[in-house]
Amino acid sequence: MALLGDKEFFKGIGDIKYEGWDSDNPLAFKHYNPDQVVAGKTMRDHFKFAMAYWHTLCGTGGDPFGPGTKSFPWATSGDTIRAAKDKADAAFEFITKMGFGHYCFHDYDLVDEAETLSKSEKRIQEIVAYLQQKQKASGVKLLWGTSNCFSHPRYMNGAASNPNFDVVARAGAQVKIALDATIALNGENYVFWGGREGYMSLLNTDMKREQDNIGRFLNMAKDYARSQGFKGTFFVEPKPMEPTKHQYDFDAATSINSIREYGLENDFKLNIEVNHATLAQHTFQHELQVAANAGMLGSIDANRGDYQNGWDTDQFPNNTLEVAEAMLVFLKSGGLQGGGINFDAKTRRNSTDLEDIFLAHIGGADTFARALLTADAVIQQSPYESILHKRYSSFDSGKGADFVAGRLSFTDLYDYASGQGEPEQISGKQELFENILNQYT
Amino acid sequence: MALLGDKEFFKGIGDIKYEGWDSDNPLAFKHYNPDQVVAGKTMRDHFKFAMAYWHTLCGTGGDPFGPGTKSFPWATSGDTIRAAKDKADAAFEFITKMGFGHYCFHDYDLVDEAETLSKSEKRIQEIVAYLQQKQKASGVKLLWGTSNCFSHPRYMNGAASNPNFDVVARAGAQVKIALDATIALNGENYVFWGGREGYMSLLNTDMKREQDNIGRFLNMAKDYARSQGFKGTFFVEPKPMEPTKHQYDFDAATSINSIREYGLENDFKLNIEVNHATLAQHTFQHELQVAANAGMLGSIDANRGDYQNGWDTDQFPNNTLEVAEAMLVFLKSGGLQGGGINFDAKTRRNSTDLEDIFLAHIGGADTFARALLTADAVIQQSPYESILHKRYSSFDSGKGADFVAGRLSFTDLYDYASGQGEPEQISGKQELFENILNQYT
Amino acid sequence: MALLGDKEFFKGIGDIKYEGWDSDNPLAFKHYNPDQVVAGKTMRDHFKFAMAYWHTLCGTGGDPFGPGTKSFPWATSGDTIRAAKDKADAAFEFITKMGFGHYCFHDYDLVDEAETLSKSEKRIQEIVAYLQQKQKASGVKLLWGTSNCFSHPRYMNGAASNPNFDVVARAGAQVKIALDATIALNGENYVFWGGREGYMSLLNTDMKREQDNIGRFLNMAKDYARSQGFKGTFFVEPKPMEPTKHQYDFDAATSINSIREYGLENDFKLNIEVNHATLAQHTFQHELQVAANAGMLGSIDANRGDYQNGWDTDQFPNNTLEVAEAMLVFLKSGGLQGGGINFDAKTRRNSTDLEDIFLAHIGGADTFARALLTADAVIQQSPYESILHKRYSSFDSGKGADFVAGRLSFTDLYDYASGQGEPEQISGKQELFENILNQYT
Amino acid sequence: MALLGDKEFFKGIGDIKYEGWDSDNPLAFKHYNPDQVVAGKTMRDHFKFAMAYWHTLCGTGGDPFGPGTKSFPWATSGDTIRAAKDKADAAFEFITKMGFGHYCFHDYDLVDEAETLSKSEKRIQEIVAYLQQKQKASGVKLLWGTSNCFSHPRYMNGAASNPNFDVVARAGAQVKIALDATIALNGENYVFWGGREGYMSLLNTDMKREQDNIGRFLNMAKDYARSQGFKGTFFVEPKPMEPTKHQYDFDAATSINSIREYGLENDFKLNIEVNHATLAQHTFQHELQVAANAGMLGSIDANRGDYQNGWDTDQFPNNTLEVAEAMLVFLKSGGLQGGGINFDAKTRRNSTDLEDIFLAHIGGADTFARALLTADAVIQQSPYESILHKRYSSFDSGKGADFVAGRLSFTDLYDYASGQGEPEQISGKQELFENILNQYT
Ligand SMILES: [Co+2]
Ligand SMILES: [Co+2]
Ligand SMILES: [Co+2]
Ligand SMILES: [Co+2]
Ligand SMILES: [Co+2]
Ligand SMILES: [Co+2]
Ligand SMILES: [Co+2]
Ligand SMILES: [Co+2]
Repeated sequence: MALLGDKEFFKGIGDIKYEGWDSDNPLAFKHYNPDQVVAGKTMRDHFKFAMAYWHTLCGTGGDPFGPGTKSFPWATSGDTIRAAKDKADAAFEFITKMGFGHYCFHDYDLVDEAETLSKSEKRIQEIVAYLQQKQKASGVKLLWGTSNCFSHPRYMNGAASNPNFDVVARAGAQVKIALDATIALNGENYVFWGGREGYMSLLNTDMKREQDNIGRFLNMAKDYARSQGFKGTFFVEPKPMEPTKHQYDFDAATSINSIREYGLENDFKLNIEVNHATLAQHTFQHELQVAANAGMLGSIDANRGDYQNGWDTDQFPNNTLEVAEAMLVFLKSGGLQGGGINFDAKTRRNSTDLEDIFLAHIGGADTFARALLTADAVIQQSPYESILHKRYSSFDSGKGADFVAGRLSFTDLYDYASGQGEPEQISGKQELFENILNQYT
Repeated sequence: MALLGDKEFFKGIGDIKYEGWDSDNPLAFKHYNPDQVVAGKTMRDHFKFAMAYWHTLCGTGGDPFGPGTKSFPWATSGDTIRAAKDKADAAFEFITKMGFGHYCFHDYDLVDEAETLSKSEKRIQEIVAYLQQKQKASGVKLLWGTSNCFSHPRYMNGAASNPNFDVVARAGAQVKIALDATIALNGENYVFWGGREGYMSLLNTDMKREQDNIGRFLNMAKDYARSQGFKGTFFVEPKPMEPTKHQYDFDAATSINSIREYGLENDFKLNIEVNHATLAQHTFQHELQVAANAGMLGSIDANRGDYQNGWDTDQFPNNTLEVAEAMLVFLKSGGLQGGGINFDAKTRRNSTDLEDIFLAHIGGADTFARALLTADAVIQQSPYESILHKRYSSFDSGKGADFVAGRLSFTDLYDYASGQGEPEQISGKQELFENILNQYT
Repeated sequence: MALLGDKEFFKGIGDIKYEGWDSDNPLAFKHYNPDQVVAGKTMRDHFKFAMAYWHTLCGTGGDPFGPGTKSFPWATSGDTIRAAKDKADAAFEFITKMGFGHYCFHDYDLVDEAETLSKSEKRIQEIVAYLQQKQKASGVKLLWGTSNCFSHPRYMNGAASNPNFDVVARAGAQVKIALDATIALNGENYVFWGGREGYMSLLNTDMKREQDNIGRFLNMAKDYARSQGFKGTFFVEPKPMEPTKHQYDFDAATSINSIREYGLENDFKLNIEVNHATLAQHTFQHELQVAANAGMLGSIDANRGDYQNGWDTDQFPNNTLEVAEAMLVFLKSGGLQGGGINFDAKTRRNSTDLEDIFLAHIGGADTFARALLTADAVIQQSPYESILHKRYSSFDSGKGADFVAGRLSFTDLYDYASGQGEPEQISGKQELFENILNQYT
Repeated sequence: MALLGDKEFFKGIGDIKYEGWDSDNPLAFKHYNPDQVVAGKTMRDHFKFAMAYWHTLCGTGGDPFGPGTKSFPWATSGDTIRAAKDKADAAFEFITKMGFGHYCFHDYDLVDEAETLSKSEKRIQEIVAYLQQKQKASGVKLLWGTSNCFSHPRYMNGAASNPNFDVVARAGAQVKIALDATIALNGENYVFWGGREGYMSLLNTDMKREQDNIGRFLNMAKDYARSQGFKGTFFVEPKPMEPTKHQYDFDAATSINSIREYGLENDFKLNIEVNHATLAQHTFQHELQVAANAGMLGSIDANRGDYQNGWDTDQFPNNTLEVAEAMLVFLKSGGLQGGGINFDAKTRRNSTDLEDIFLAHIGGADTFARALLTADAVIQQSPYESILHKRYSSFDSGKGADFVAGRLSFTDLYDYASGQGEPEQISGKQELFENILNQYT
């Protein structure tokens, strides 16, 4: 049920409903059926779809070769607080019309930063109070909050990794305020994406010193939030590069290494973004699996990259096969630990109709829904699981099980192998696995 | 002083000497002056240049689109052991003519694998005995040994990560024999490059199970080698992909994460290859720095990739600027821990003159030498170190030092930042750093 | 109806039939229904699926890190001609069991090259006579022939672009023989893929001279074939790199430029390979469109690359969305000019069961079939065509039509624009187009 | 001799002088000695270094993740014309202090666009008159002008390729004004860079129609300019992607193909940008060579990309080896046809000192100078040219010369090859060529 503010921003667009596969209504879900139960849970609960404040409400389409193209009706007031409330009204109108249950934000998505820290804090507190009302009225929840410590020129050399302590301190103060806001809004998680925590050139960089400072900073953030009663999970969001030449949280494995190095493994998990995975030369499903293996598959930023473009295009998901492979990992790992599916995606610069925002989210939600159904069918109905299990069955008993249990030495392996001929050749059957997946898509 | 075997293989090529910058002799070093002292050590000791048995003596130039092109005079005997001894003679002739002090091998570089494990072991023992004599006669040392657990069809689904225990056991037996050989030859280190330890498709792969098995395998290898008196270091050599779609030891950070996860951090360090760094979308110097930060900068496989080609071209180093940035990290990190500079590089398929092998190694050694001289000059003579130090000086005293010492909380940062205005804008001066480096090249 | 030779090579596998979407038989087509009419033509005629001799019958799985893994039962005879006939028997057994109508080959796929040119020619003539019988008995046709002028060491510096005239002449002689064979087998087309026509280093290359020589060579090939009565089309197959650092036929546009530069546009079209498109940072559909725009969309080499690997993986197609976008171009361009869909794809090195070859081709054919059905439905049933047409409708009348007709000058544009205000903002509706495509997949 | 306006913007920085290799003055040239004669011409005349108005004076450091960081003293006036004149003063102060002779601009670099076309035209005319005075006073010339038809939201779907004729007309009017300005300033050339002439998605694009419209547009531009007495050359500047997913002028070969297709080959040449070359998976030298082969090597946009980042980083040149390989092509092709070396490069977002702009240009000019000296020495003093010539000498006489002269048929090649044995194996000597180049760097 749509929650409107004083005026309706998305006029002519009502609640988006599930109408099924053969609907020709572009403003209806064809696969995402929130109440449908898949693998023991509703789609709504599997996904916890979230709207991203930044792209959806603040992103006007600027790129390195031109300014924004989109005039948002919620961005017309000259009064900062009024504009922020209009934006919040638009946010909740959009979320509720989509039938989503969550949203995510950076601090200064909510309201423009002021000239000083204390004035900025007041602004945030004011809009947080307003959002508390909107949440209550709608039942929509905050999936996670974060702080934008990369856009302002003061962060041009990094935030927690800045060579100048004054900037590190300023970032700490800003994150403190963002944590306070997240806690006040019952945020379920808190995210760190290290936008400029990396380097432009290794020549002018003391990498070790910078990384150690980040480790300290994250520990301080965690300690502060816990002291304020925050029970949620912290997420690190890996990205290999852009805007910096090299970001320290390059990919899932790199981020896990840092989390462990700085003793954060009990409080931190990962927020995996599709486009960041592909920029790091990984598949989306690879990054999910790496996170899951470490018990750190926390949340997902859903989007897609362009396989021919080397930057973060943040397009809406549309490739069912790609997402179906990811949903196999998702289902087999038991889903997300605390997080949800946040559409960190933007309509193209030349998609200037307000309607396009709905079309894009609908396409994205349908792609995930169809992929989930595919993965579930593969697991439940196809021989996939049994042939995969059989592939590794030599470790379930005999010498293989001894090996797994740590009961063998190299000398044992040598003796065993010496007594055997050439091992049997066993096909990996990759094409069969691929065909099975396609059969159920 | 060249050590020849029964016949001279590189006829017409004598000992390669340092002749200096303005020599027009293509078969002389122009920068690599083994006895020249740089930063307190001779170039010889800084680099410990090694010949790679596989490319230099076994690589006949085959690629996915055609077989080998090079007819090596040491590969003419129909008798396996005779051929292996000829190859060893060629190896030591080459190493000593180049004035290098080290070499590296895979087990089956030394001698062709036989039909059975035990026959293969005998062959290796025979050639090891021969190499012991050659080492003694020449003073040349074994920088590291390794085992080729990726070429034979039995390893098509991986070695330690194979889904079939029988193959894992066979790999263990093979590595045991390679460790025995390395120890017998006083090998200074032992390398693991996980050629097929990864996956072709995530669909048919249980990544966690495979990685855990690798962890067990490496621990068993270490335990066995230590039990046999091996005192050297084990190296993991990261590579992101090729031949598999995805290798588990993707890059330095990923490998360090695994080393720590499986409790190997006291015995294992990294062998960083230039071309593997660039295939993983890192610079060479980045990977060196990541390794150094973890105290794991063990050894270097020197080569270069082609920035427009997405596979391992393993070309000889020729870009002084690229290597100079690496040598800055090298010198500032105190050099390599146990390893050396191994030319894991091959002449092009169409470089079919025997002379080309010399030209290529000369070019590579000169590139490293020139880069080392550049890096040393930058550190010693330029303002580089002082402007870099100044860039981070805010952490050397006052609140910055308190932060580093762990004496501040987020509330302290908030209070401090609240009392300050906007931090001063400080240029990163990247272009100045770049100009300084170029000035000394 | 399967055509067997003296013995059956693919035992236990019968004719592959269409069984429809819900069949659980892995050895049946689920979408490819040869006789089904789509857009006025049967699927069989749209596609003209061809088996590629090289991958399917000669490719034993070798890669740069290991030799072949697959023991083919048709490759066991020590007698060269017997082995070639066994291979031909296996070829026709496979093609007919798959229900395909075409095949493609390189000269030395058919039979091993001999020590001399004239002996090689005799071998080819002998196997060509055998293939003529097989074609007659089965009705299977030769889609295209080609010559392998890149594998033999003599071509290590290129064939037509070789700096040594003797090699150019040898390549010419080889192509003449391959043309003769193609003509004798009623080949419908002839392909040039410039495997080593490019460079490893620009430093030792006279690019202009080499390209001019290629232009001469292709003209000579065309003149010769026409003089022998060949009526088919010549295809150039673009590829950007690999095995050379840089191939001259980088992509479709580059190849069209060369075809025109050397006056070959009346006889030559393009053979577009999916994986070569993606290696050149294009999509498959982009390359098809570029070829179609020039009236040169001749044929397709069907496979797929891996988006994270920078070499030619030549995997079987499995991504319906990717191929559906290509089939939109295919249908709207009126299909292929003379060529067909050749599976230039190979099973993975670790897919060692003979059955895997069938599974792979079935998956590939089904992917194309499903994509064709999708594209046809989008064109016929969805609003796709009408919104696309509307997008460009300003050029169908008025000043826009004058512009297209060449009736306007820059001064006219200036006058027109001066009389108008800011042009209306019109959304590109990319997300809508994407959703429509997904709805019909 | 520096030409200042009313006030000096780059205070404390005087004329940049050549001080030679061993100068420690960061604000002096170490290699670029304008009057030094190399290969028969002064460095000044070889290079015709130009300042790019956009990056140097308008680029404040914004990127997709944050706004500008740099406060330029010439951008403080609230009066548009005053601000434009201040910028022009800064431009000429910078150019003359650097000792450069040229500059380049987009129309709206000179002065901000107004709300209407006619007001914008008046503004441009006013600032053109001012620039005429500055040119006269300083002797500085306009290397080329261009029009920014990609930043304004009206061009979000392209300019000449826009699906809406009204936008095409508006672009035509804008280019007409820019041509008038270029002619009024005696601009030596005029450039087209197709910023959004390409597509975001092929799904909503009629590529053929768009490309034909571009062809018409360029012909109209040429006809208009020629009618106004413009004698200079038009340049197309290839770029593969960014901001669009795919730009039509992908690379040099693609652009040459279009130029020829639309009959523009007598008036158009190419402007090759280093970073665009590498984004297209080519080397800089490759793109120069392709242009030179077609007689279209017109001008150079000097910068560099980052080999690990997939977007246009536009950094200043600093890699002597890379540029030296390019200068070999440059010298051997007889230099540039009409154009010069334009620094289309920007200091990093965090290089916020005004001084950094000087340091960056000095580094870039020195890199080109050093590379030119290297290439000249290689050509003049080394065996490079003679071994390269020898490599192709088989085409200089005998049958090879007959082949080149078109006197041979395929039958002749067949007969010739039949009479020969296997061609001699001749090494490509790539490593030798590389060593020679390095020796002279
Ligand atoms: Co994200
Ligand atoms: Co992103
Ligand atoms: Co290596
Ligand atoms: Co390598
Ligand atoms: Co192909
Ligand atoms: Co291919
Ligand atoms: Co440019
Ligand atoms: Co650029």
